[in-house]
Amino acid sequence: MVVILRENPNESQLQSLVSWLEAEGLEVRKTEGQYQTILGLVGDTAKIDADLIRSMDIVEDVRRISEPYKSANRKFHPADSVIDCGNGALLGGGHFQIIAGPCSVEGEEQIITVARAVKAAGAGILRGGAFKPRTSPYAFQGLRGEGIRLLLLAKADTGLPIISEIMEVTQLPLFDEVDIIQVGARNMQNFELLKELGHTKKPILLKRGLSSTFQELLMSAEYVMSGGDNNVILCERGIRTFEQYTRNTLDLSAVPALKTLSHLPIVIDPSHAAGIAKMVPPLSLAAAAAGADGLMIEVHNDPAHALSDGPQSLTPEQFSELSAAIARIRPYAYQY
Amino acid sequence: MVVILRENPNESQLQSLVSWLEAEGLEVRKTEGQYQTILGLVGDTAKIDADLIRSMDIVEDVRRISEPYKSANRKFHPADSVIDCGNGALLGGGHFQIIAGPCSVEGEEQIITVARAVKAAGAGILRGGAFKPRTSPYAFQGLRGEGIRLLLLAKADTGLPIISEIMEVTQLPLFDEVDIIQVGARNMQNFELLKELGHTKKPILLKRGLSSTFQELLMSAEYVMSGGDNNVILCERGIRTFEQYTRNTLDLSAVPALKTLSHLPIVIDPSHAAGIAKMVPPLSLAAAAAGADGLMIEVHNDPAHALSDGPQSLTPEQFSELSAAIARIRPYAYQY
Amino acid sequence: MVVILRENPNESQLQSLVSWLEAEGLEVRKTEGQYQTILGLVGDTAKIDADLIRSMDIVEDVRRISEPYKSANRKFHPADSVIDCGNGALLGGGHFQIIAGPCSVEGEEQIITVARAVKAAGAGILRGGAFKPRTSPYAFQGLRGEGIRLLLLAKADTGLPIISEIMEVTQLPLFDEVDIIQVGARNMQNFELLKELGHTKKPILLKRGLSSTFQELLMSAEYVMSGGDNNVILCERGIRTFEQYTRNTLDLSAVPALKTLSHLPIVIDPSHAAGIAKMVPPLSLAAAAAGADGLMIEVHNDPAHALSDGPQSLTPEQFSELSAAIARIRPYAYQY
Amino acid sequence: MVVILRENPNESQLQSLVSWLEAEGLEVRKTEGQYQTILGLVGDTAKIDADLIRSMDIVEDVRRISEPYKSANRKFHPADSVIDCGNGALLGGGHFQIIAGPCSVEGEEQIITVARAVKAAGAGILRGGAFKPRTSPYAFQGLRGEGIRLLLLAKADTGLPIISEIMEVTQLPLFDEVDIIQVGARNMQNFELLKELGHTKKPILLKRGLSSTFQELLMSAEYVMSGGDNNVILCERGIRTFEQYTRNTLDLSAVPALKTLSHLPIVIDPSHAAGIAKMVPPLSLAAAAAGADGLMIEVHNDPAHALSDGPQSLTPEQFSELSAAIARIRPYAYQY
Repeated sequence: MVVILRENPNESQLQSLVSWLEAEGLEVRKTEGQYQTILGLVGDTAKIDADLIRSMDIVEDVRRISEPYKSANRKFHPADSVIDCGNGALLGGGHFQIIAGPCSVEGEEQIITVARAVKAAGAGILRGGAFKPRTSPYAFQGLRGEGIRLLLLAKADTGLPIISEIMEVTQLPLFDEVDIIQVGARNMQNFELLKELGHTKKPILLKRGLSSTFQELLMSAEYVMSGGDNNVILCERGIRTFEQYTRNTLDLSAVPALKTLSHLPIVIDPSHAAGIAKMVPPLSLAAAAAGADGLMIEVHNDPAHALSDGPQSLTPEQFSELSAAIARIRPYAYQY
Repeated sequence: MVVILRENPNESQLQSLVSWLEAEGLEVRKTEGQYQTILGLVGDTAKIDADLIRSMDIVEDVRRISEPYKSANRKFHPADSVIDCGNGALLGGGHFQIIAGPCSVEGEEQIITVARAVKAAGAGILRGGAFKPRTSPYAFQGLRGEGIRLLLLAKADTGLPIISEIMEVTQLPLFDEVDIIQVGARNMQNFELLKELGHTKKPILLKRGLSSTFQELLMSAEYVMSGGDNNVILCERGIRTFEQYTRNTLDLSAVPALKTLSHLPIVIDPSHAAGIAKMVPPLSLAAAAAGADGLMIEVHNDPAHALSDGPQSLTPEQFSELSAAIARIRPYAYQY
Repeated sequence: MVVILRENPNESQLQSLVSWLEAEGLEVRKTEGQYQTILGLVGDTAKIDADLIRSMDIVEDVRRISEPYKSANRKFHPADSVIDCGNGALLGGGHFQIIAGPCSVEGEEQIITVARAVKAAGAGILRGGAFKPRTSPYAFQGLRGEGIRLLLLAKADTGLPIISEIMEVTQLPLFDEVDIIQVGARNMQNFELLKELGHTKKPILLKRGLSSTFQELLMSAEYVMSGGDNNVILCERGIRTFEQYTRNTLDLSAVPALKTLSHLPIVIDPSHAAGIAKMVPPLSLAAAAAGADGLMIEVHNDPAHALSDGPQSLTPEQFSELSAAIARIRPYAYQY
Repeated sequence: MVVILRENPNESQLQSLVSWLEAEGLEVRKTEGQYQTILGLVGDTAKIDADLIRSMDIVEDVRRISEPYKSANRKFHPADSVIDCGNGALLGGGHFQIIAGPCSVEGEEQIITVARAVKAAGAGILRGGAFKPRTSPYAFQGLRGEGIRLLLLAKADTGLPIISEIMEVTQLPLFDEVDIIQVGARNMQNFELLKELGHTKKPILLKRGLSSTFQELLMSAEYVMSGGDNNVILCERGIRTFEQYTRNTLDLSAVPALKTLSHLPIVIDPSHAAGIAKMVPPLSLAAAAAGADGLMIEVHNDPAHALSDGPQSLTPEQFSELSAAIARIRPYAYQY
């Protein structure tokens, strides 16, 4: 961390800043320039509140040299994390998984049908939304508790571990038997929820916020991990840009970037990113080629009548073809 | 609402779409072009799920002509809403309020001192954060319940109504005596929280999300209002842009835009937007000149030692000067 | 095109609008709703100035249903365009090319060395910057005319067709023997330059602007094509987002999106997008997997001493490995 | 400038970097941390190419502490620049100007009528577009040379100095008698044009690019100033954001920010930013209140039939009212 001082800093304030930093266990190295003096801080700065220092009269700016996250940082944990998603499904460190299923759970027959179909086609984990974040209060909000119950039936039927999205702390008891808890993009900075999830020890799939940076995503992972749960799966699902043709812009540089910065596995969700079913296959192949640890793909037995996000869902037949194409391309994917 | 059909739509699917739309109470007017056929929908389309229609095979796109929000829409409620914030403080419809106080409540002496100072300088409402959303789990998270207790002491001491931010549904009981509940930018699309707040009937100050549009802000207001609480105050606090010099970019076009689209009052928060204390006075004067219904300004008795957001806080003396300057400029502000 | 009228439009103004539209060869279909009346325009609306109509008193908004570009539109030219880049190098419609070379031409030995190396490794086109757009007037601005001369030497030596960036109309005579003229991202909307290039008939590689949409890119292609030059190659090179870790965000959805919207070939430049050499291989494999028609990759014999953009350049050895990996993955790429 | 080295840098490479930096006249101060070593560079770093250093093997990153612009920097020129715009019209340093006129010059009667009207209403400078950047090749491109000729007639008639936009270097001879040359947002990084304008000594009004930062705007000003022309006027005209309701988002924090960073005057263009005539008055008052040095406002005698940008133009009557309101609010504006 580098502290840039204002011109002619008050000496006694400077002395008290230096003493405070040293009391926090840091070494302070001072460099005086013509217009500016900087303090180089040596030691563990991850837990230093940069805003607090920036707020001082004598300080012009504070720049981090090292990352403000620690548990999620590959520098301190060089080996890839491998997450046990239940029923033998491993994710990360060379273990690749396709997570597939409908955007929303709509009924018993629907979810069982889709679960069997995606399992047969090669998916290792079943997805299904029970609580749905919708921008309009007049849109379908999900089957909620009943949706979780139906997902558990599909899990019992197929043996596939399941993942579903939580929207709020009070819903947590309903997720007892859910294998992976998903935190949606709009909740990536719902810090109270992240803290609570840190006490569950369950795998948490954390989606990148619509206008969040990699560092912010990793800071949110850090919230979960600082509570004691290290089973975090990162997920890129598209960010907001000026492009209007696609719903969001899938940022596949997330794969090499997050693999460099962190040891956590990274899953790509092309369905939500594009919002257009026919773009899912080329983007899925691209994600696999870039070396992602997994894919999250929406599949619906009847996309034209899906209650939410129909336009981005594949039919089981389309998914089956895509799953085979992914299997064919993976041996040629980039190796980290 | 206009439904754009794909080329050569299947006739029976088209017929079933038209029947369904008519069953929803809409009139359907068909226009056939050379390459495209469109359906114009006449009637109340606010409660129609555009995504559902867009998901159909025969549909290429759906465009809304009228806004998808109704309770917040000025078209249906031409008169300005006036919100009663407690202790006689009215906001909106010509009633202007300055909301002032520290970013975080830090202790009894601090909040009482600041409360008295901002009241003396002309503030009508006291702000103070008890629950603090911070990007790092290692940063100060607020005094939480104790912070609310101290705010209530300051309210008792000065008679100022108080506003504080809620982060999660389970915190709601602590806000019983809080006059205005603030929903922060990161929670603007925490739909479960918004639904719950709709049952309180309290004034809700809803901050625009960092990358949200005016329409999304109004849809979130609609969530609160659809629960029965019409006392929503909109707040612009800066959006994320590529500019790095300011923390966020204050969008003052929010004032004329939201006054056109909605009858709800609009408050501007220049402190969080800029993140730099010396930019607060010019931006406050600009907001007043544009015709905002109120301002939210951070004031701290000792900004250099504030536990959060010190760099953007004014001293009580600076605030007092600014408050006087705002009073002088307001007679020349734009009148809607 | 749909014209949305204001409430209670003036009848004589409406009549004169309708007459004017009909004089432009369009059919006008009117739909009256409760709050709004819309006009559906049927016919060739590509050459209608939407802003002009939007400016009328009685008009609230204008929405395009069909795209405002015509020559670049796949609807009117279903077959893929194949661009002849010189010396037998074809691009598009199944013909894949790797364009490789240094960011800047720095000297004869450098460009000849790199040209031979990339040719040996499989590149079909040589790139090299002579005119360099730099944000600082104090940074290296390129060898300019001398750079073009050296590129032509490398072309003579290796037989590779060459591509170089033009920054301004007056530089055009220097590009007489350059095979492909590149228009950089910052010049994507330099309309005077685009018009002039439309008279050259040469292949024009048009880079997407840093905050441009696909439609804007295609409108800029339309500028070139409306001048008579149909040999336009589209290039995605990263867009500006809030992410700071990568220089720009590579938007690989450009591949499926532009292949749907247009018949022009699409080339991906992962070097400029990421700005980090080690991210180039995974992103290149991803681009190939998504079905791009070509790649543009920076290669420098001595990246550590390159005069510009060293951090994103591969060595000839790294490029050779990458080129082989691309050849291995291409048979498994998505087929349009 | 701070250079952050990779772990365990090669000693001889480090030595050669240090020698090179010292040869550039800088002092180098080294600070060794646990994981990272940094070099603090003391001296004039404005002309150092940060990218060049960043490209070295042993370097992880380079951060600027001081700004990379010098001529435009207030640190080195504390006093406000005052620009002489011709015919006694001064701008900056307390001199406020309203620049008004039509988006496009359309004919002699139109420009003379508008010129007389805006002069009578208090405008000090006449604007009028002759060369028009339009996203579609099929839209009206301006009267070009003829437009300049008509503007000069209006100047002769009213005595108002005139401003018009240049799009390309070869148009420069036509601007001989134009008082202020405008560089549009899309050309803010047309570096060849900026260099050429630096040799004219004329006042140059430089508009901020649609997704540019303040620093990038000042670097473009630096391009003009490094050619010898110090008469640069900065102009904020709205930036691209996710908001769709307004055409662009007017960033009024540009006023306090640019006044802190630079000595150059700053003019606000609310007409292009909003794209909606009725938003121009509140935003103009806000800009004046924030302490802008001038405003640029579109006025058209017949907005409903303007050939471009009609929806954002005021009538002469509306402009006259607004001009009076601006005069009334200015005494209460923020003083720097």
